[in-house]
Amino acid sequence: MKIIVDVMSGDYAPLELLRGAALAAEEYRIPIAVVGNSAVIEEIALVNEISLDRLEIVHAESVIDMDDKPLSVIREKSDSSMSVALRLLESGDGDALVSAGNTGALLAGSTLLVRRIKGIRRAAIATVLPLSAPILLMDSGANLTVTPENLEQFAYMGSYYLERLHGIHKPRIGLLNNGTEHGKGLPLQTETYALLSGNPDLNFIGNVEGKDLPFSPCDVLLCDGFVGNIVLKYTEGMGKFMMTALKELFMTNPMTMLAARTMKGPLKKLKTRFDASEYGGAPLLGISKPVIKAHGSSDAKAVKNAVLQAMTVLSTEVNVEIARMAASMPDRSEKREENAPPAGTDPGPDSFPASGGEKETNT
Amino acid sequence: MKIIVDVMSGDYAPLELLRGAALAAEEYRIPIAVVGNSAVIEEIALVNEISLDRLEIVHAESVIDMDDKPLSVIREKSDSSMSVALRLLESGDGDALVSAGNTGALLAGSTLLVRRIKGIRRAAIATVLPLSAPILLMDSGANLTVTPENLEQFAYMGSYYLERLHGIHKPRIGLLNNGTEHGKGLPLQTETYALLSGNPDLNFIGNVEGKDLPFSPCDVLLCDGFVGNIVLKYTEGMGKFMMTALKELFMTNPMTMLAARTMKGPLKKLKTRFDASEYGGAPLLGISKPVIKAHGSSDAKAVKNAVLQAMTVLSTEVNVEIARMAASMPDRSEKREENAPPAGTDPGPDSFPASGGEKETNT
Repeated sequence: MKIIVDVMSGDYAPLELLRGAALAAEEYRIPIAVVGNSAVIEEIALVNEISLDRLEIVHAESVIDMDDKPLSVIREKSDSSMSVALRLLESGDGDALVSAGNTGALLAGSTLLVRRIKGIRRAAIATVLPLSAPILLMDSGANLTVTPENLEQFAYMGSYYLERLHGIHKPRIGLLNNGTEHGKGLPLQTETYALLSGNPDLNFIGNVEGKDLPFSPCDVLLCDGFVGNIVLKYTEGMGKFMMTALKELFMTNPMTMLAARTMKGPLKKLKTRFDASEYGGAPLLGISKPVIKAHGSSDAKAVKNAVLQAMTVLSTEVNVEIARMAASMPDRSEKREENAPPAGTDPGPDSFPASGGEKETNT
Repeated sequence: MKIIVDVMSGDYAPLELLRGAALAAEEYRIPIAVVGNSAVIEEIALVNEISLDRLEIVHAESVIDMDDKPLSVIREKSDSSMSVALRLLESGDGDALVSAGNTGALLAGSTLLVRRIKGIRRAAIATVLPLSAPILLMDSGANLTVTPENLEQFAYMGSYYLERLHGIHKPRIGLLNNGTEHGKGLPLQTETYALLSGNPDLNFIGNVEGKDLPFSPCDVLLCDGFVGNIVLKYTEGMGKFMMTALKELFMTNPMTMLAARTMKGPLKKLKTRFDASEYGGAPLLGISKPVIKAHGSSDAKAVKNAVLQAMTVLSTEVNVEIARMAASMPDRSEKREENAPPAGTDPGPDSFPASGGEKETNT
């Protein structure tokens, strides 16, 4: 088992990425390929006393930035650390990949270089929302627009992932909507509701409203990537806001400052609860090999956790099992081709063509 | 000045609505028309010892439910309390209206019966997000889909509202998006960005991400009503969640339970901060007369505050001023008619035709 880490992408790259990779290599005793500018990596390692003993350095010339277009991964920046890392994964010179880089580029590159599982029409990023009970948000930002058929496939993949990795029996599938009543939402929501209600394979529990999100309304939450991105980042912001508001609260007067001391332990626990880095990273479900998107602001600990998650996804053979399952998912391709695409499914400038052109593969 | 209150709509109707109307009538010494089934109103008042002295009862036969279609307000339920209330407002038999009912129906009814301000192509619900600094969310659920030109008009109206009612000089306008970088988002966002960047009247500060929302990134936040609904309700849910998590925290052990006593005052203050009912209700900006949407779960206090807000909107002549301002807003009607509608603007099943047919009016 060899894990590939793109150490040049992310807010704290390359230092925290490299540090995290070294920590993981030492703690889990596995070989790790770190991809990036070799001179930079060696310099950073030297200055920060990071051992390169267990790391294999693979050189890459450039880096994909957060505002690079998704397709730059195969075009003008095909010599980037992300591109080189993806090609290593594709060729089998590594078994799973961790990157904290540009989400759109990672999805595009995974789809075009590593390829989707046969039968899966869009890969999705499955991120855990750190709420009272964790919710798997699909899609959480990779596909700005989706079709009802995409969401149905996300439901299958998310269910399977939670069953396999978290031992949740028949995960509850919810559709994020502007009301719980049947018939709510835009055509994307009403059509998805109809599709999922009629599918006996899925434990679809209906529409879920924003106000219920913190109170465990479902296990998998379906939405397009635009809304998913807003919800995911807002959750993160609210976690920080909550801790700030609490600190202010405890600074009210000397009595409350005294109370703060008593509360130190429980407060730390609360903070951990909102800490996305505890969950390691988010898998790109639907890609034929394990690709883990680490949070852009990942520190060394988060990177180490993302490597662990890559190892878990690999050892539980989630990708292999999704490929097996894909064969038994309802084939909706004809239906969608007959009809006009539903409202709100036009690919935005951050998207890339979803079908036609990219190769699919069996794992 | 007479305020009209639809006392039959809302989760706690008619009791809390009637109680709130009676409280407002007594506290603010103004005449209030309460619209609803007169027999029910008299019975409820008798049983709960609510004085009807200052209330004028206007009978309405039916009630619009939360799952009724928006157009039911002028069709099958044109005898509903909301419809009768809107007609009272239109005819001048009352100066402002408060309703806690079905948002879509209230927008449709306000547009079709009371009419929009001349030049305004969509009315929007302007709700305050109770965060570290309040943000005016437009649209917060009335228009599931919007055009860039709609959002530009919302920016004008929201700016004006905050200047006039909250004394905020040159309010900062932000566009909710999946990243802060220029070029992010779907066509709705990129086109809106271009439109607002080129408008010297507006203090447009660019894209705003979910994670920054709690930290006062802007004063007016623009988005379509679908996303706005999710954000608004999620904010509400997170406020509740935060208080629940805090309570658990203080129940950790006897020491923390002791600390809780010290914190009672500050905790209550924190709770108030997240309490949407403190803000009274949300005005439908763009309608020729003041219509205030009270929260569905409004209690008597929230209803009383909504009446106060109706009085403030009325006395500051916001609607009159928006009508004056509308004449100087850029006229984008030709541009949009020439082009195809942008992606994501198809009216959903909860929408109603946005242009053509409805009358506009000068106030």
